[in-house]
Amino acid sequence: MNFKLVSRIFSLILLIEALFMLPAVGIALIGHEQNALYGFLLSMGATLAGAGLFALLSIKAKKGFYAKEGLICVSASWILMGLFGALPFFLSKEIPNFVDALFEIVSGFTTTGASILSEVESLSKSILYWRSFSHWIGGMGVLVFLLAVIPLSGRNDGFTIHLLRAESPGPDVGKFRPRLRQTALILYATYIVLTVLDFIFLIAGGLSPFEAVCTAFGTAGTGGFGVRNDSIASYSPYIQNICTVFMLLFGVNFSCYYLLLLRHFKAVFKDEELRFYLLTVIISITVITINIRNLAWISSTSEALRHAAFQVASIISTTGYATADFNLWPTLSKTILVLLMVFGACAGSTCGGIKCVRILLLFKGLKRNISKMIHPNKVQPIRMNGKVVSEEVMANTNAYLSAYVIIIAVSGILLSLDRANFSFTTNFTAVIACFNNIGPGLEVVGPAGNYGDYSVASKIVLIVDMLAGRLEIFPILMLFFSGFGLRKNS
Amino acid sequence: MNFKLVSRIFSLILLIEALFMLPAVGIALIGHEQNALYGFLLSMGATLAGAGLFALLSIKAKKGFYAKEGLICVSASWILMGLFGALPFFLSKEIPNFVDALFEIVSGFTTTGASILSEVESLSKSILYWRSFSHWIGGMGVLVFLLAVIPLSGRNDGFTIHLLRAESPGPDVGKFRPRLRQTALILYATYIVLTVLDFIFLIAGGLSPFEAVCTAFGTAGTGGFGVRNDSIASYSPYIQNICTVFMLLFGVNFSCYYLLLLRHFKAVFKDEELRFYLLTVIISITVITINIRNLAWISSTSEALRHAAFQVASIISTTGYATADFNLWPTLSKTILVLLMVFGACAGSTCGGIKCVRILLLFKGLKRNISKMIHPNKVQPIRMNGKVVSEEVMANTNAYLSAYVIIIAVSGILLSLDRANFSFTTNFTAVIACFNNIGPGLEVVGPAGNYGDYSVASKIVLIVDMLAGRLEIFPILMLFFSGFGLRKNS
Repeated sequence: MNFKLVSRIFSLILLIEALFMLPAVGIALIGHEQNALYGFLLSMGATLAGAGLFALLSIKAKKGFYAKEGLICVSASWILMGLFGALPFFLSKEIPNFVDALFEIVSGFTTTGASILSEVESLSKSILYWRSFSHWIGGMGVLVFLLAVIPLSGRNDGFTIHLLRAESPGPDVGKFRPRLRQTALILYATYIVLTVLDFIFLIAGGLSPFEAVCTAFGTAGTGGFGVRNDSIASYSPYIQNICTVFMLLFGVNFSCYYLLLLRHFKAVFKDEELRFYLLTVIISITVITINIRNLAWISSTSEALRHAAFQVASIISTTGYATADFNLWPTLSKTILVLLMVFGACAGSTCGGIKCVRILLLFKGLKRNISKMIHPNKVQPIRMNGKVVSEEVMANTNAYLSAYVIIIAVSGILLSLDRANFSFTTNFTAVIACFNNIGPGLEVVGPAGNYGDYSVASKIVLIVDMLAGRLEIFPILMLFFSGFGLRKNS
Repeated sequence: MNFKLVSRIFSLILLIEALFMLPAVGIALIGHEQNALYGFLLSMGATLAGAGLFALLSIKAKKGFYAKEGLICVSASWILMGLFGALPFFLSKEIPNFVDALFEIVSGFTTTGASILSEVESLSKSILYWRSFSHWIGGMGVLVFLLAVIPLSGRNDGFTIHLLRAESPGPDVGKFRPRLRQTALILYATYIVLTVLDFIFLIAGGLSPFEAVCTAFGTAGTGGFGVRNDSIASYSPYIQNICTVFMLLFGVNFSCYYLLLLRHFKAVFKDEELRFYLLTVIISITVITINIRNLAWISSTSEALRHAAFQVASIISTTGYATADFNLWPTLSKTILVLLMVFGACAGSTCGGIKCVRILLLFKGLKRNISKMIHPNKVQPIRMNGKVVSEEVMANTNAYLSAYVIIIAVSGILLSLDRANFSFTTNFTAVIACFNNIGPGLEVVGPAGNYGDYSVASKIVLIVDMLAGRLEIFPILMLFFSGFGLRKNS
């Protein structure tokens, strides 16, 4: 293990995190928010001190990094970011319990949007800003950002690939592996441009700059923290529709935008994952619109459509904003929403979940399996967008599903140990909502509820689930396994 | 498609089914059950007529059979058995709705034990016997029985293998593939001896011969239909404990008994699946005992242990008998039971579920996947009981899990369309309980409830789920796919 190089990365990450706290300090200053200002300054100090400490440890770091180290490094740095990122909540005393503060910031960084707060309007603006900003930071992936901006190792070596592989969502059916730094920069440019566009549309709809920027951050990171107690419900239909459109846009594989820029329209139009994503969205919206049309509080089909479209966009993109308490919707709508939670949107976006491309691969694998029973000796490669998918990718996709199911089962068991003794549905959807980085589940943890009543142990389980979901399981599993068993063989 | 050969198999199956109705006719005669007698005689006539019709169609059948035909043949013959097996319920007017009657008998043959009846004590004894006997018939697999008894093709050819593969539970990590007929006979002998032992122990506990034989059938097939409204709850603790022991015994891979007969004690002791199964049972019983010890109606730890052991045995063996309404137990116990529903017991037993050996393979595959991230170039075969598991088996196991998850999701959606608008938990556990051939789920379909209030459409979905679960998914999927799409390529 190259601890010195790992320390250097940790040091850089904490430095960036401290810098990211600056805008919040500005907001606290302008708003005369004494406690928050105090909290942020103290937190910045602590974070910088941590950065300095790791910088000292990293003196004379040699290059050379293995896959395992890359993965553990990614997991550990996300945990580190969480621990320091929770400090402003804790030190400002706005979230006086440290585990709660950690839950909230990990929920932010992992773009989950699950909250332990029963209401948010009493929080100071700078704290609300930090909460929403964490979505935006987490959505882009700090380590990839690091690679894009700072030439850490000087060459496009294995280390970079390992980090990118660990932090980028989706399986390895990537469109551009070479020219890593350049593409990373293009992706960030897209991310920033889309966020700015969202912000402008929100401002045009009459939101205050503060609300617009926070909502745009929550949308871009597909996070879901809002600045009002009722999430997006009290905003105008125009604002809600803008959110719907941008949530869907942030669910598209960013490489599609890149291809659009290069005028490869045909490639985008024929992209199987994009088609599957859009088809799923359209069918879900249609069915839910019909299903909720006759609810007492829905006055017209267009209102039903607006709520259905918003909720489908919010759930499939794993954002988690709410305009209505879908916990009270009919079972059909709830079941579709739970399925969309598991689906997630496209790989290469800021979304959580299994991702549409994996669902497609699983379906294709299943179809091949049936076909193989008929023609056992025929070679039947699986294709995606016309290209043959390697058996390694198929094996990884299947392993992902196993890990996914096992983590949900184990987390469900651990949550049911909670003295709160919530129902099966609450626990089950809480795990799904955190693990897929969505936010709200059903019943107690539904859009009108929160995670505050879980015990400390359960909150830690959910924190691990959020991290495992954001980093797509394996880096976090590695971190656990590296402690026992697997180390012996390496 | 060799329709003539398929017809011959159908004809033989219906002939056997008609013969299987004879004991019920005897019971109806002794008990002077007029309606039931009438129903059984008419059903036997219809079944024999069906057998005759297929016999006519099968004249001049040539040998020669492909994998696809074998699989479709298995699925179709199970459906055929269900259609004719439902006749006694329907014609005796004891279950006046045909879909309900079909649900009940498919639930019987697939050893599920899910019922649409709100109470059973008003049914005639011959009907109750037929209901329980169907578990015993389904548990052993009629087609395998056919192969074991009747020399259908004269040689140990591909056809036989295909049928056996489709109807036997568990992946292909089999211990004895050669000498097919001989081993099948040994397995049946074991099945019959264990059933008789169970019967003797139940008689010794004071049950009437009728109750003892029905309970033994339900236990042996791991089905779960009882002859009392409260399942096993009103029997003595001794009877309940006998059931616990035998449910666990019927959950063991039958090849272990075969190995015990051959005095290969070491091989049995070291069997990884058996160890995993016993470990899961012991841990689950311990945790649930502690968890329910303080419930108001539990008077002592030993009573808690009895209920916990009974329920764990009942669920992991996918029998579904109940001594208590576990729907009212704490969430931890309920969550463990739902997980055990998914687990199932060992392959090569009469149980449903994913089976312990597949769970083990999935864990091993996951572990290898993590290890591969560290040592990408190292060849890491997966071993089970010391032998290398082929990559084909691993791929099949993964495909099984995908199919499993997809079927649960699709069925859940379809059930949520039901006008009854049951809760998410009810629908979700109904699908799991039927698909894994257990019987009771939670809430409305819990041990104290039944499936009667679902609509006809939902009942058909659950019937398909029960069949898919019993035949381990792929034969039933084949039947669906053969109608459209896949046929073109064959």
